[in-house]
Amino acid sequence: MRRGIATVSLSGVLADKLDAIAAAGFDGIEIFDNDLIASPLSPAEVARRCADLGLSIDLFQPIRDIEGVDPRRFPDVLHRVRRKLEVMNELGATTFLACSNALPTAIDDPELSAEQLRTVGDLAASHGVTFAYEALAWGRHVNRVGQAWSLVERADHPTVTLAVDTFHMLARGDDGRALAGIPGERIGFLQVADAPVLDMNVLEWSRHFRCFPGQGMLDVSGVVAAVLDAGYDGPLSLEVFSDVVREADPHVTARDAMRSLLFLEDRLGARVTGPAREKVTVAPPLPARTDAAFVELADPDRTEYPALLTGLGFHIAGRHRSKPVVWWRNGGANVVLNEEPAPGPAATALGLVAPDVAAVAERAASLLWPAVDRTRGEGEAGLPGITSPSGLHVFVSAEAGQTDDWHNDFVSDDGAGTSPVDEGWLGLDHVDVTVAADDLNQELSFFRTLFGLRPEDPEEYIQPQGRLRIRALRAEKGDLRVALNVSDTGAAPQPHGVTQLAFATADVVDSVRHARARGVEFLRPPANYYADLDARFVLDPDLLVVLQDNGLLYDRNDDGGEFLHAYTLPVQGGFQVELLERRGGYTGYGSPNAHVRLAAAARAGSAVA
Amino acid sequence: MRRGIATVSLSGVLADKLDAIAAAGFDGIEIFDNDLIASPLSPAEVARRCADLGLSIDLFQPIRDIEGVDPRRFPDVLHRVRRKLEVMNELGATTFLACSNALPTAIDDPELSAEQLRTVGDLAASHGVTFAYEALAWGRHVNRVGQAWSLVERADHPTVTLAVDTFHMLARGDDGRALAGIPGERIGFLQVADAPVLDMNVLEWSRHFRCFPGQGMLDVSGVVAAVLDAGYDGPLSLEVFSDVVREADPHVTARDAMRSLLFLEDRLGARVTGPAREKVTVAPPLPARTDAAFVELADPDRTEYPALLTGLGFHIAGRHRSKPVVWWRNGGANVVLNEEPAPGPAATALGLVAPDVAAVAERAASLLWPAVDRTRGEGEAGLPGITSPSGLHVFVSAEAGQTDDWHNDFVSDDGAGTSPVDEGWLGLDHVDVTVAADDLNQELSFFRTLFGLRPEDPEEYIQPQGRLRIRALRAEKGDLRVALNVSDTGAAPQPHGVTQLAFATADVVDSVRHARARGVEFLRPPANYYADLDARFVLDPDLLVVLQDNGLLYDRNDDGGEFLHAYTLPVQGGFQVELLERRGGYTGYGSPNAHVRLAAAARAGSAVA
Repeated sequence: MRRGIATVSLSGVLADKLDAIAAAGFDGIEIFDNDLIASPLSPAEVARRCADLGLSIDLFQPIRDIEGVDPRRFPDVLHRVRRKLEVMNELGATTFLACSNALPTAIDDPELSAEQLRTVGDLAASHGVTFAYEALAWGRHVNRVGQAWSLVERADHPTVTLAVDTFHMLARGDDGRALAGIPGERIGFLQVADAPVLDMNVLEWSRHFRCFPGQGMLDVSGVVAAVLDAGYDGPLSLEVFSDVVREADPHVTARDAMRSLLFLEDRLGARVTGPAREKVTVAPPLPARTDAAFVELADPDRTEYPALLTGLGFHIAGRHRSKPVVWWRNGGANVVLNEEPAPGPAATALGLVAPDVAAVAERAASLLWPAVDRTRGEGEAGLPGITSPSGLHVFVSAEAGQTDDWHNDFVSDDGAGTSPVDEGWLGLDHVDVTVAADDLNQELSFFRTLFGLRPEDPEEYIQPQGRLRIRALRAEKGDLRVALNVSDTGAAPQPHGVTQLAFATADVVDSVRHARARGVEFLRPPANYYADLDARFVLDPDLLVVLQDNGLLYDRNDDGGEFLHAYTLPVQGGFQVELLERRGGYTGYGSPNAHVRLAAAARAGSAVA
Repeated sequence: MRRGIATVSLSGVLADKLDAIAAAGFDGIEIFDNDLIASPLSPAEVARRCADLGLSIDLFQPIRDIEGVDPRRFPDVLHRVRRKLEVMNELGATTFLACSNALPTAIDDPELSAEQLRTVGDLAASHGVTFAYEALAWGRHVNRVGQAWSLVERADHPTVTLAVDTFHMLARGDDGRALAGIPGERIGFLQVADAPVLDMNVLEWSRHFRCFPGQGMLDVSGVVAAVLDAGYDGPLSLEVFSDVVREADPHVTARDAMRSLLFLEDRLGARVTGPAREKVTVAPPLPARTDAAFVELADPDRTEYPALLTGLGFHIAGRHRSKPVVWWRNGGANVVLNEEPAPGPAATALGLVAPDVAAVAERAASLLWPAVDRTRGEGEAGLPGITSPSGLHVFVSAEAGQTDDWHNDFVSDDGAGTSPVDEGWLGLDHVDVTVAADDLNQELSFFRTLFGLRPEDPEEYIQPQGRLRIRALRAEKGDLRVALNVSDTGAAPQPHGVTQLAFATADVVDSVRHARARGVEFLRPPANYYADLDARFVLDPDLLVVLQDNGLLYDRNDDGGEFLHAYTLPVQGGFQVELLERRGGYTGYGSPNAHVRLAAAARAGSAVA
């Protein structure tokens, strides 16, 4: 596929944008007129610059509100079109796009609009270019793709074509089926954007929250597959406006954008049925399943983490063959402490069992996710590492017993010391990774595109100094669950990376009691919390006593599934361990308790400070 | 009036919130149940703390979804209510509030809901408290105040009253008239919040964007006046949720909140017609008119500003009687350079002619806007200064010739040097003040509440490294116009305070030519900009040549009013002067040119750097 992007999707001035787009490997661009107008480069100079960079100018968007216009004002429209066509010819652009009229003065008269489109089509033809007409989701009278197509059909002019924009279609509730019967050669251009699902004014939604495919929740690939199956032969061109990209480095954005197109093509592999399938590049497959293997924490101090793990009943299970790295284990739970000096507070890693290891590594490379630089010692597993957008290192292991099993990196210590007590630890339930607000879309995209994790609905909690937003993801096949945290607390610096590990145990009351006996301190929910639990759930008084005596939090779902959990006091500037027990099919995370946990942590933090 | 605030309106944990609320002088509070649940203070301890602080607990909001409930589940509701009433009795709270049912399972049966309200009312009565029922704007079946009142009437129980919330009413399009005929003694509570007008999901709007009265655009005082005129006798209680207050210092928020209630009462003075008028505290009046007098810039370097002003045709008109401050003048335009070491980059001030000076100073004090500390020398004007939330100093002067005229602070230099050339400078057209994003609501409130300035619609522009948001205000009477700027550009530090002065001249072409001849450098719009002007406006070719030759920007409104303007290159880290000419009733600011100006400034900035 030809891959394109609109200059409006990047920050910077036009010359910077062109450089960033070319560096990311795009084939072509859409020029947003305001970028050109504000540029000291003449159209001819822009054309030369693009040619030097290997970029074709696939689209120009110089004009709005060209149909449904009062006939007395239409000559001024044609004046504008003529002038802009001259600019286009200088640019060497081949298609220009205009959206449906969004002015309050737009006239609702399909015959008039079709005639005006035809007149514009004549002008375009006389300048040797094609015109593509798009239904803006907030167009005054034309705001659905079917309405735009009906006007294009009525205009019945060879250079008047339909422009398809995935956002405008999906935002209005249309999907690929709305394109049924439209011949591909009548589709003049395809613009691609994703977005989170938001219930708000569609213009504001479009301007501030669009994102690249794989970062949002719209069925972008469904629309694109329909366009390709119709026989459309042009570029897939990204048009994304958002508050995030406007402030980001254009080179980073361009690379993210390219990655999103590669991911889109990968998805299209399964959805395009016609001959266009040949043109779609498909990445190596997703792993068959994705399970948590271990979490690595930077532990140059060798004090707080070993004390905490020991208190929690972990024992040293092995030592790395070539590095100062210690493997700690408690039942099915594995933590690895790296005693090398940490490059930063977010120096954490996640080990996943995700076969086939080689295919995942290739998939990461083909989707442009960067590999972790590392050396592999004699006899060690081929444990490819990928760096997430937030800086987390993710290592991919084969299943136990295979050559590339992560355990092979360690010389076993199990049984060498005191015999570990089995306290029924089942393993890692989920891991919380804290990321900066502007990294959230990208981090989500990382886990979705590379491992096929499925995002759940965003959640948001009040914390004493701001808000905590959580976006959880879980593997479709396998046990991996990751909760991405964004802490909006103004200027205060936040720890990043793995900030919380949640371990499931078969009997959390027992686990917490043992840990407490070994000196581990847990957050203490206040008495008011237990009074509220009783008010909400009409709890068995014995259970309430057990919960309160052990400082456990509690939740119950409508089907009677229960969730009991507790949090250790923060160590190392904000790291916590959660111990939890799921009973009877509870699949959530105890969200109603988040505000209690956050207030208790804030109190603990200020008591420590 | 009794003045109250909900604990949810502040950041922090409960104990911090109570301290901040008491320090700001409130009479009472609403306790948000989550604040209590997360607190280690027992209800009795909270009651004691409040009593010590002189705060009554006017409201408790412990429970939701208590009507329209499946009768099989209603016993659980009553269990919850009973438990929470016990907590209330411990707290000593007198009224509890519950909102209309927002669950998807809510049953649309007014008879059932009224009966359930009555049952809850019986429980409340048996605990000696009043129950207030509120229509949540996103309630499943009850979401308008009229519906809630109808259920309260149908419940026909002395302790079941109506709760009025200005946000919920105004968000759904109701105003004070929706309360017609409701007796004041049946209104059990009044919650007050303002908000900007946003077209989005009302729940999200409510949770993230509420603000204090005077910071938003809803007609809060209209609803409150109707409630008071109905005979309501309880507190005005602020309930504001927003992303801004959640991250702010609770002491600052509490003071802002108190100020907003004082302003609300001031407005009520003109709107309440019944006996409640006696209870409303009215501030000294707004100034009769508000005109720009001068702008003061910090100029410890004594290099760039004097050079720029000289180049622009300003001359030294006087020197301050007691301070190292120099007054520069060009026709009606006045700039004052303060040569003292600047405390910071935002060390700028605005001088306004706003009679009566003493009344404005008293108004500022009564609305809690802080005075500027300053000494007044022999023979100097009584020029009271007020510090805006962003840190701008605003000095209030009497009209020319009076004792408290700011000119009296200066010994005139006019005519002492070379005779100034009159280049037709009319004076300050508007001043741009750049503020931090979180200060915008408060800065807006400052100019509205103190001087009666009227805000225009928010505008937003793309700049190369982010977004620029502008909120303009203008005097109802007088020539003052202030444009508040917020620059969203990620991590990069931004200049704050007065960042741009726009001077109107009778002939901007002439003014720019003279300034250029004297060495002033202006931003140069690119040739593409002029090609676009021609495409958009079908301009007179002679005018186009004049504009391009002189580097002027141009705009025209639908009535043929024209706007010609030019910007100097940024000096002192971002300060610019705009020269402009208004022709034929153009009242805007040349907004369509903002992106060109911002790109040119970014280029100039990187060329300088």
